[in-house]
Amino acid sequence: MKRLEHIHSPKDIKKMNTKELTDLCAQLRQKMVETVSRTGGHLASNLGTVELTVAMHRVFTTPKDAIVWDVGHQCYAHKLLTDRYTRFHTLRQQGGISGFPNPAESVHDAFVAGHSSTSISVANGIAKAKALTGDKSYTIAVIGDGALTGGLAYEGLSNAGRSEDRLIVVLNDNKMSISENVGFVARYLSHLRTKVKYVRVKQKLSKILNHTPLIGRPLTRFIQFVKTKLKRSVYSGTSFFENMGFHYMGPVDGHDLDDLIEAFRAAKSVGKPVLLHVNTIKGKGTPYAEEKPDTYHGISCFDPDTGIPQSGGESFSSRFGQTLCGLAAEDSRIVAVTAAMIKGTCLEEFAQKYPTRFFDTGIAEEHAVTFSAGMARGGLLPVFAVYSTFLQRSYDQLINDTALMNNHVVLAIDRAGVVPDDGETHQGIYDVAMLATIPNVTMYAPSNFQELDLHLRQALYDADGIAAVRYPKGGEDASLADYVPEEKPFCLDDDGGRDVLLVTYGRTYGEVLALCRRYRAEGKLISVLKLNRILPVEAEVVALAQQYRCVLVLEETRGGVGDLLGSRLMQAGFGGKYAIRAIEETLGACTTAQGLHRVGLDAQGIEAFVKEQAYGR
Amino acid sequence: MKRLEHIHSPKDIKKMNTKELTDLCAQLRQKMVETVSRTGGHLASNLGTVELTVAMHRVFTTPKDAIVWDVGHQCYAHKLLTDRYTRFHTLRQQGGISGFPNPAESVHDAFVAGHSSTSISVANGIAKAKALTGDKSYTIAVIGDGALTGGLAYEGLSNAGRSEDRLIVVLNDNKMSISENVGFVARYLSHLRTKVKYVRVKQKLSKILNHTPLIGRPLTRFIQFVKTKLKRSVYSGTSFFENMGFHYMGPVDGHDLDDLIEAFRAAKSVGKPVLLHVNTIKGKGTPYAEEKPDTYHGISCFDPDTGIPQSGGESFSSRFGQTLCGLAAEDSRIVAVTAAMIKGTCLEEFAQKYPTRFFDTGIAEEHAVTFSAGMARGGLLPVFAVYSTFLQRSYDQLINDTALMNNHVVLAIDRAGVVPDDGETHQGIYDVAMLATIPNVTMYAPSNFQELDLHLRQALYDADGIAAVRYPKGGEDASLADYVPEEKPFCLDDDGGRDVLLVTYGRTYGEVLALCRRYRAEGKLISVLKLNRILPVEAEVVALAQQYRCVLVLEETRGGVGDLLGSRLMQAGFGGKYAIRAIEETLGACTTAQGLHRVGLDAQGIEAFVKEQAYGR
Repeated sequence: MKRLEHIHSPKDIKKMNTKELTDLCAQLRQKMVETVSRTGGHLASNLGTVELTVAMHRVFTTPKDAIVWDVGHQCYAHKLLTDRYTRFHTLRQQGGISGFPNPAESVHDAFVAGHSSTSISVANGIAKAKALTGDKSYTIAVIGDGALTGGLAYEGLSNAGRSEDRLIVVLNDNKMSISENVGFVARYLSHLRTKVKYVRVKQKLSKILNHTPLIGRPLTRFIQFVKTKLKRSVYSGTSFFENMGFHYMGPVDGHDLDDLIEAFRAAKSVGKPVLLHVNTIKGKGTPYAEEKPDTYHGISCFDPDTGIPQSGGESFSSRFGQTLCGLAAEDSRIVAVTAAMIKGTCLEEFAQKYPTRFFDTGIAEEHAVTFSAGMARGGLLPVFAVYSTFLQRSYDQLINDTALMNNHVVLAIDRAGVVPDDGETHQGIYDVAMLATIPNVTMYAPSNFQELDLHLRQALYDADGIAAVRYPKGGEDASLADYVPEEKPFCLDDDGGRDVLLVTYGRTYGEVLALCRRYRAEGKLISVLKLNRILPVEAEVVALAQQYRCVLVLEETRGGVGDLLGSRLMQAGFGGKYAIRAIEETLGACTTAQGLHRVGLDAQGIEAFVKEQAYGR
Repeated sequence: MKRLEHIHSPKDIKKMNTKELTDLCAQLRQKMVETVSRTGGHLASNLGTVELTVAMHRVFTTPKDAIVWDVGHQCYAHKLLTDRYTRFHTLRQQGGISGFPNPAESVHDAFVAGHSSTSISVANGIAKAKALTGDKSYTIAVIGDGALTGGLAYEGLSNAGRSEDRLIVVLNDNKMSISENVGFVARYLSHLRTKVKYVRVKQKLSKILNHTPLIGRPLTRFIQFVKTKLKRSVYSGTSFFENMGFHYMGPVDGHDLDDLIEAFRAAKSVGKPVLLHVNTIKGKGTPYAEEKPDTYHGISCFDPDTGIPQSGGESFSSRFGQTLCGLAAEDSRIVAVTAAMIKGTCLEEFAQKYPTRFFDTGIAEEHAVTFSAGMARGGLLPVFAVYSTFLQRSYDQLINDTALMNNHVVLAIDRAGVVPDDGETHQGIYDVAMLATIPNVTMYAPSNFQELDLHLRQALYDADGIAAVRYPKGGEDASLADYVPEEKPFCLDDDGGRDVLLVTYGRTYGEVLALCRRYRAEGKLISVLKLNRILPVEAEVVALAQQYRCVLVLEETRGGVGDLLGSRLMQAGFGGKYAIRAIEETLGACTTAQGLHRVGLDAQGIEAFVKEQAYGR
């Protein structure tokens, strides 16, 4: 048999027998652990879907058949089997293999997936296109039980189930929704898991399988047999998926290759949308990952033998969690909300200390905002901690349920600006522009930990309506560790010269300040306006900026304060020079430093920009 | 008994007996039909919830108990019972009674609701706030089966069901989801309706009720009795709601006051979240509305006796539907998607002509976009017709599932700009600013029907990625009916003077052009730059504008092209005068003319603005 490194296409595994495939699975796991220990990535979920992926590629033929991975946290085996083995060590690195599926990377990736719960809707669309154009191939969505907590997945199921298309939804049930303890999905699936007998057609069918050359022969009788077998083993109380319009099959043992292959073959013959329920174990085959699947869900570099991760220092996220606990001790109205990101947003301590005041909504950002607005209306002080990129899902709820009534909801926007490793679907570069379109929004952008404390307090007690605090992934800039924040909307570091004014905020302030000091030492007249409250754009800021010859805005976002201030200055009749350095591109995978370099917001880029714009070429 | 006009608070109905309440219901219906025939509004759904509303106010006491109406299409009886009778004739008029609940209007309205599927999340939040602050009162969400098709409702159910709070979700099942033929909800509820026996505890309990003074006495035994009765009548296969964590009760006949009152009393005693399933008939009590509930869902003025509506002329919406049918005849790749707005977006003819190429997703705008992106990926040409305000729900799907892969999805954005009657939750004033934050977006804004045809064709065939066409509710401006559109991104009507340039687009062009002609007749040098493709802002537009002494942007949106162009001009070093007339406020209920007047975009406002900005005060 071919070893993993010699597999260049899923075609190479079509003829492999169970033993060979099992061996291949072991190689896939080894390669993943080796790689992720060096690159970081999503480990536990990928270890759990090895057999599932191999079985899919055994039965289906990509790219003709389309596999749509939800979120993409389970697509590493798929990547390794579709000609990306030799580049796999570049996982999640600039110019390397993406941690998520991406059609630009391979024809075997049917769709980009970074945000959860989209796969059923996507697959519904692809399958519909095939049906309307007479294409008889299959479309498969692979979705985890965690992703089923999102409303979009429900909308997708409800709509896809109405079609008659060649669509298979694989429910990869790794009990993710249980670790999050989230409502319906956890409850319903555990119900199915305990009551349903495993599909055990293996023994009888394996003989037939092993002796029947399947390709080019009529499969009718074989398929009939499998269907009958499977139907008999299906639990009758599966009304949720059946009512959605799906033919429910399962649950199947997600680590038994023969069962999986048989189930997929049977699913192909059903003639209407199928929901195939597969039980998998997160971290499968790697003891430390099986034991602590949460820890090894998304992980930084670690020791591949022991699994001991590199320790991270204090971060904006951890400081947020800590500070919020302190504030909550003083004020019983404070409640915390997360959408399945308790670890990422560092709310674990809060959840332990204040269990009745902590809410994990599952992957349900829309609900999280509307629920928060309801609590605000009831007199509480809700703080919704959310990654910048996921807040995009709540746009309408922010407008209608929050802003229009001026309900006081605090948004702790984590992972704002350049976000390392995950690529363009996870960059936190839309939040400022998005919130700027909404009325009654106040937005703060701390530059160091101490200022995060201050801004959180201000967002809670000095603002009304939507009050957002945005901060980046990672720690504070060493040069800013001693910066003492001030309780005002902006701070002007002025040299009286009224020549060049650099306007900035957040972590960018560190490099901008450093440059300013260097330039001053050279005798240049240069001032820095550090925005603390970045939205709304203050009339005073406009008036101040007007006094300078040259105003330059530097910000770690896309279409943010710079455009608003530019428009205001234009309307105010400012006749000076004006330029903006912001994030213009969508920005693929990179480290934070690489990302800042690429968008010209590292020391070098900032200096080049200021030099050119303020002092001519 | 008191007649409706003398009821100033729900307290007034607490002592009424069934006969009196029945009479009250008839008065409520009469008042609604009378009023809506003159004002327009949501009739059929409001006629269906009269008994439900009366029963709720009989059992619960607002504002202590909070009633959260979903969407608000069923809140008219509630408004009439809570001291808004005398002002009810001002329904949906500027300065009048809102067509939706609004806490600013009455303490009895717990929350603003304009967009669907939010009520469970809101009620979850309010109930949670009560629980945490020791408030023992109840929170009731009233949600229609149509609204259950939205993913947010699913997220809300799943999360609210995990609480132990005093929360009652009333499922107002008026088979709305059936008229929309939408997936799971229709299928599941019809299953419940047919298999479940009505709760018929009336006969035995009415005696007890009539002879037991309920207030201040221990109700334990009474409640136990009701609970047992109800439990026995509950169908066992209600696993969806039970798995969500709710105690399921029903279905109850939504037009039987005694049953309703008993059911609400029982629901209060359950001690965990209750889902009370109530069957109502849309249009109840008004034959023409019962017969055609769809027609009388949202309606303009009509004859109260016959129900014959005022006929509407051709509109941008009807022209869109017509044109799309024509295009679809030529190109089999064209498919149409709506999110429960087939009538409003005028896709009925398309649905009839091309049933396999038409998709109504239910109230599921997120799915609609992601599904469209999937179809685009599969080689189709999807056109998603959606109201501007509802497109806000798809922000993240537009970014991640569409823009990042540059999937070609056409958005037909109806009800853009000032929208009459429905108030601030329905204004179409965020779409331009929202889409401007997203990469790879092309946006067109036709000024008349002929240009809508052209732009639709351009969006389909000349653009890639997201291609949006925005148009207002209503017809074309008579002055623009003969305007012949041109196939270029913008048209300059220049007088060579390079003095004043008015930049505008969409229907605003009509008044701007008229003003320009008047001014020219007076000898003024004034030009008009009509943007056809409004996004992205073209470099040529910036270069052109720079040549003028004074550039004024007039646009029917909030924070749109004006800010972008202003920023670009500032960066380009434009030294002239620059000002923007756009929509600054959230804008409550009004007619289109009133709205345009209020925001200064009618003839008078435009002239005043240009006069002041271009020619000094």
